[in-house]
Amino acid sequence: MRVITTIKDMQTEIINLKAQSKSIGFVPTMGFLHEGHLTLLKRAREENNIVVLSIFVNPLQFGPTEDFSTYPRDFDRDQSLADCEGVDLLFYPSVEEMYHHSSSVRVTVQERTDVLCGKSRPGHFDGVATVLTKLFNIVMPTRAYFGIKDAQQVAVVEGLISDFNFPIELIPVDIVREEDGLAKSSRNVNLLPEERSEAVVLYKSLTAAKKAIEEGERNPQTIKDQVSDMIRSETHGQIDYVEIYTYPQLKEIQNLEGTCIIALAVKFSKVRLIDNIILEISQEIGGVK
Amino acid sequence: MRVITTIKDMQTEIINLKAQSKSIGFVPTMGFLHEGHLTLLKRAREENNIVVLSIFVNPLQFGPTEDFSTYPRDFDRDQSLADCEGVDLLFYPSVEEMYHHSSSVRVTVQERTDVLCGKSRPGHFDGVATVLTKLFNIVMPTRAYFGIKDAQQVAVVEGLISDFNFPIELIPVDIVREEDGLAKSSRNVNLLPEERSEAVVLYKSLTAAKKAIEEGERNPQTIKDQVSDMIRSETHGQIDYVEIYTYPQLKEIQNLEGTCIIALAVKFSKVRLIDNIILEISQEIGGVK
Repeated sequence: MRVITTIKDMQTEIINLKAQSKSIGFVPTMGFLHEGHLTLLKRAREENNIVVLSIFVNPLQFGPTEDFSTYPRDFDRDQSLADCEGVDLLFYPSVEEMYHHSSSVRVTVQERTDVLCGKSRPGHFDGVATVLTKLFNIVMPTRAYFGIKDAQQVAVVEGLISDFNFPIELIPVDIVREEDGLAKSSRNVNLLPEERSEAVVLYKSLTAAKKAIEEGERNPQTIKDQVSDMIRSETHGQIDYVEIYTYPQLKEIQNLEGTCIIALAVKFSKVRLIDNIILEISQEIGGVK
Repeated sequence: MRVITTIKDMQTEIINLKAQSKSIGFVPTMGFLHEGHLTLLKRAREENNIVVLSIFVNPLQFGPTEDFSTYPRDFDRDQSLADCEGVDLLFYPSVEEMYHHSSSVRVTVQERTDVLCGKSRPGHFDGVATVLTKLFNIVMPTRAYFGIKDAQQVAVVEGLISDFNFPIELIPVDIVREEDGLAKSSRNVNLLPEERSEAVVLYKSLTAAKKAIEEGERNPQTIKDQVSDMIRSETHGQIDYVEIYTYPQLKEIQNLEGTCIIALAVKFSKVRLIDNIILEISQEIGGVK
């Protein structure tokens, strides 16, 4: 595995690889790798000649009150993990390298941002889309891998790639779950033991919603109420949101049909958890994937 | 020459060419080709294996009161001219093909826009930068060619390529002039005979300014006054602006040093003409390129 810290070296390397018709799988991260990242790397390893991992804590996507300076970093550990997963090129630029002068341009995300978690993070997705535009031009990947756990980010990236015509295939990777269904997260360790048992209801409420839709329910409010009621009755957690939108457009919907997301966020005593399922809903009863 | 109208066909063709290590020279235009465009095509033909011309009248860069629908179009003539200049691929997409759904992202240009011609065209350069981001991802050029006649556009494109790390070399192409020094433009035919004779003062005033700087003048206001006085005394045209900025940053400057642009716009009875010179100014007297 080669660690590259400059944009110029990275682009030179990639242009050489592309002249040899190598396919490039790219996993962009902010480092402090967890199991979710490793799943993305494994998938990229299976599907491409070359795997590129980037580690860059992007100041542009942190709000003024957010934790850019205290965001966890452990490059040595990340480097070992990347090596184990068969990463070929680890791109690890400094902030100075990525934003060396005042920027005259940035990407503005006009849709898909003012709902779900994005609602309380104005400008966050502009920062994400801007750094990804840079990284896509630096790494020039054939395929880019993102975890569907952050479904709103995947929706924004889908819009970015599609609207700007990046010649990149977006690969959304399924949520990895514990045996009892809880979505894996490095934050799960902050659940109290009782909360950990209760937290299983998040995914349980989503699968129950899926079942209700399979049985013919098409009213999103009814589904949202059912999910909320189940969470309230089976946890001490506070619901932040339970929402249903079209996916990936993230628009309100009156009657469930097409591709929809059911997404939720629940606050426990020391940690806020998110989960979601994405369903393909047709008009017939039972027509749900 | 092959005419391509879809994004997918263009990307497929380019990916094949790049796998053969072909260099790609790109001239993006809105069509209705004139001598300036042909100069860009000739230069691209000299320096690359493959020459791509795009013709696309981009609605995004026209303001609400501007002439998108009446902008001149003549595809048959453009196609013949492109063929004569040795263009390999002519990309000619419809508006529907380029903007097939509501866009969730766009490029915002934060600097270099609120001066010179951009001052009176809010949003214009956002539209230019957005369509160029798309075209760069569709054509994936090695080199992109722009005429320095529109020096502000070149400055914006320089920022776009540099800040977003496009792996593209920007080639600014010098202004082509008539024998008497008037910058060539398809608009020159709209000058009255007397105005055509007078218009020579535009370039004359710029070369006089260069001479004054060579002789030691470093005060931008003195130079601007000298240029304005010369234009006023030798034409009936109305000065729109005479400005000096750093280049390509387009920032105000107190003492002439480094790379600077002297740019002007003058309104004649039926037409507004622009011209500029870019100078490398060092501290010594005579240190001007």
